[in-house]
Amino acid sequence: MLTKIDHIGVAVKSIDDAVPYYENALGFKCEGIEEVADQKVKTAFFNVGGVHIELLEPTSPDSPIAKFLEKNPHGGVHHIAFNSSDIVADLANAEAKGVGLINKEPKIGAHAKKIAFLHPKFTKGVLTELCQDGDCGCH
Amino acid sequence: MLTKIDHIGVAVKSIDDAVPYYENALGFKCEGIEEVADQKVKTAFFNVGGVHIELLEPTSPDSPIAKFLEKNPHGGVHHIAFNSSDIVADLANAEAKGVGLINKEPKIGAHAKKIAFLHPKFTKGVLTELCQDGDCGCH
Repeated sequence: MLTKIDHIGVAVKSIDDAVPYYENALGFKCEGIEEVADQKVKTAFFNVGGVHIELLEPTSPDSPIAKFLEKNPHGGVHHIAFNSSDIVADLANAEAKGVGLINKEPKIGAHAKKIAFLHPKFTKGVLTELCQDGDCGCH
Repeated sequence: MLTKIDHIGVAVKSIDDAVPYYENALGFKCEGIEEVADQKVKTAFFNVGGVHIELLEPTSPDSPIAKFLEKNPHGGVHHIAFNSSDIVADLANAEAKGVGLINKEPKIGAHAKKIAFLHPKFTKGVLTELCQDGDCGCH
């Protein structure tokens, strides 16, 4: 079951430029900035009432975020991630309802979460991620 | 203060096509469908762990959502709305930090909420709405 929105992924040209906007103009506290090498992005996290906003800056021209920014040069919402209580079951349900999957099986993402993307051809224009908290003892 | 994400506005070509996807493939329950004549949209609401997803289908070619769909023909995230505990103060703070405002003063939206949009030129590509619950006795 999908229980809540885990995070909203927002593509930005520059973390250094965007973080002060989110901190000062909107009043959110940045929880951390880190580079995720295999995704070729630098990320900044904000906790907004239990839902995270994840800013994503490309670190390479062949990052998926770089390609998104070519089409959306001012930045914009890149994806929405939903918390799943059982990601294998939720992927199977989506597939049974006719939704193609980018990841037929979950892979391990940041914070030991299991993550998988639905194929955007089937999600009405919104790139959609499912994620399930990992068994790292930290959740 | 901005306390949480109130809703995510998602532009769709067809509510009739998108609602079954959100209900069946993602498992969310549609809380209602209504037409908002002055915004020239038909909307469908889903409550996802306390944050609403608001699907928006244009009802006229000059709807802002119709213009968004011209650029994003598959649909996509149109705006993010944050709950404000004091919208006048939060607008003043944003303006003091250099953010232009579409609505210098809040207007009354659905459910008697006070709403205002920040100017997208200043919000790093994300159309951003602030909203404060109204004094209608229903919140």
